[in-house]
Amino acid sequence: MITSFNVFVPAIMGSGASLRTGIKVREMGCKKVLMVYDKGLKDVGIADVIVQNIQSAGVETVIFDKVVPDPPDTMIEEAAEIAKSEGVDGIVAVGGGSSMDTAKGINVLINNPPPIMKYFGVQKNLKPGLPLIFIPTTSGTGSEATNMCVISCTSRGNKDSIVSPVCVGSLSIVDPDLTLGLPPKITAATGIDALAHAVESMTGGNANPMSDALAREAIRGIVKWLPIAYKDGSNLEAREHMILASMYAGMAFTNALVHLGHCIGHTLGAKFHVSHGLACAAALPEVIEYTSKTEWKKVAMICECFGAEVLENATPEEIGLIGKNAIRSFLKSLDIPNMKELGLKLEDVVKIAPLVTADTGFALVPYRITAAKIAEILKSAYDA
Amino acid sequence: MITSFNVFVPAIMGSGASLRTGIKVREMGCKKVLMVYDKGLKDVGIADVIVQNIQSAGVETVIFDKVVPDPPDTMIEEAAEIAKSEGVDGIVAVGGGSSMDTAKGINVLINNPPPIMKYFGVQKNLKPGLPLIFIPTTSGTGSEATNMCVISCTSRGNKDSIVSPVCVGSLSIVDPDLTLGLPPKITAATGIDALAHAVESMTGGNANPMSDALAREAIRGIVKWLPIAYKDGSNLEAREHMILASMYAGMAFTNALVHLGHCIGHTLGAKFHVSHGLACAAALPEVIEYTSKTEWKKVAMICECFGAEVLENATPEEIGLIGKNAIRSFLKSLDIPNMKELGLKLEDVVKIAPLVTADTGFALVPYRITAAKIAEILKSAYDA
Repeated sequence: MITSFNVFVPAIMGSGASLRTGIKVREMGCKKVLMVYDKGLKDVGIADVIVQNIQSAGVETVIFDKVVPDPPDTMIEEAAEIAKSEGVDGIVAVGGGSSMDTAKGINVLINNPPPIMKYFGVQKNLKPGLPLIFIPTTSGTGSEATNMCVISCTSRGNKDSIVSPVCVGSLSIVDPDLTLGLPPKITAATGIDALAHAVESMTGGNANPMSDALAREAIRGIVKWLPIAYKDGSNLEAREHMILASMYAGMAFTNALVHLGHCIGHTLGAKFHVSHGLACAAALPEVIEYTSKTEWKKVAMICECFGAEVLENATPEEIGLIGKNAIRSFLKSLDIPNMKELGLKLEDVVKIAPLVTADTGFALVPYRITAAKIAEILKSAYDA
Repeated sequence: MITSFNVFVPAIMGSGASLRTGIKVREMGCKKVLMVYDKGLKDVGIADVIVQNIQSAGVETVIFDKVVPDPPDTMIEEAAEIAKSEGVDGIVAVGGGSSMDTAKGINVLINNPPPIMKYFGVQKNLKPGLPLIFIPTTSGTGSEATNMCVISCTSRGNKDSIVSPVCVGSLSIVDPDLTLGLPPKITAATGIDALAHAVESMTGGNANPMSDALAREAIRGIVKWLPIAYKDGSNLEAREHMILASMYAGMAFTNALVHLGHCIGHTLGAKFHVSHGLACAAALPEVIEYTSKTEWKKVAMICECFGAEVLENATPEEIGLIGKNAIRSFLKSLDIPNMKELGLKLEDVVKIAPLVTADTGFALVPYRITAAKIAEILKSAYDA
């Protein structure tokens, strides 16, 4: 099979790397950058340190600190107006997926007229934007490595995404120090998002050897270090492995994409406002079991990364079951709630099955699947 | 430690991928490309198939088939003149390291005046060249993934290299079919070059987590599949794993560089005309043992990739010995000759030690080492 690997964001990595932001931004030729983050990041002091670091390098900063979760198109358009009227020549996003998605959306609008909803979908011919620097502060989204941004469309009441080279960063600054203060629950929920990226990228219809290699590296890192980061947030070694695993998983899924687990995750998120990581984890074990019908070689690799033994003559069904159990017990070890524990009702949950098939990632499911079968998967995952 | 990963070449991968060359070249907007390869590749029929494939896509071709091993500056300057006078708008290299290095050198000269020796070293501000497509036909050099080219300087009688974004490919087309006909000896010698890239990139002074991950993937692939490709050249699965491992190792070393093994390799090659792969393998086991003094964690990872057991309380010296033995017996299993078997004299070999310290890669040796110690390493490797 012929596959390809295209998207790549240069990275600097390591404890203290974020203190090189100013130097790097100046090296890129920027004189005045838009800083994109949320109030929470200001409150914990991370934003100010980076702003000051950039200013100390002689680069002016314009602050946009109004990022909200599930960034709406209207907010992005407002921020883009600020960027244009201030004449910035670079954009620095600090935060999780919402801040990075906001920065990507702003970059789309720098040289392409609003509204941003015009650009939903795969866009090959957008006019380029500005140097775009990502500084993740969670270990999960992987957005610092991807070519896509997810935006909430206020007029339509749904989420959609833009996939474009304009969303690709010029540099990711991957500094585990910034994740030391993440509370255990967020550590687990974001880490599980990275796990979902990795296992889905390996089992989807667009997987390739290079994304598989990065995904396996990510899974091994998450299996070993997420439980440690969850129990002891101050363990810098665990934080470092997790922020790298998250980036590797981002690199894997931006090239190989995700599938059913994320389709279910997006739908649960939209219908019941379950947070992204928990929503994507909700049926992940069952999804991986299901994909084993055709992708059992990949599921066996996933089992190996979990340290779960697969006998040489195991059937695809047996491999699927081992994979499901490995992922489910990993989720339980991190106290990730199932849908019942999230307070959802079974009859509401199974009703979303037809909506799942309408999600944009559905085409990547490696095996034909009906809404009825999705309902079964949801039922089986509900109180697992 | 803060490290970075910058260089990346998009790739299409898989059996038959080279038959997409024409489509890809056209997609890049090229109308007339320079084809760079050697007579041998024409003789085995590979070059003609690709030329025809490009022509069928409606793209004109200009042939430069005079590539010779250790490409000399004068040949590259001649080829660049042809590229400019013919007004090509793209360059396609088919072959091993020599063809790719020639294409890179030509690309440097497209918009920067000759002689090419003016540009030896790290060049950040060269004028960009043309779209550059690499189609490797061996699994070893990894040049399709790197930002460097090695050129023989005829007036000075030595080899030097250019490191520049102008040497970075626009696309690598990684097709294992093209390696099916490689004879066992070349399969082994080139595969060992990839192994050297991987283990040296991990143990050098510029290693980073991402290059380490790719290098480990490469080593695992080489350990499992090179012996199979060596014994049965028609095994496509082995050929596929090897050409990918070679690319991963290239990605690792262009970001993390190589060190003492390659310094010794370059010097043996220049003094005694030993081929690159064999020259780099000559003292590789001893070099890895030596680096274990400081890089024992990395050497332990290498041992793990070889399936060689390292006890938890092993000392750096013990780990180094295990690593040395694992690599040495792997080389023996592939019938890679030691320096004695290559017909070199011990007294000549130890004399090159001071020259090794003058090689450009020497600064990356992770631990201070004297010429006397290098002589010891060479002596120990001589008939090992």
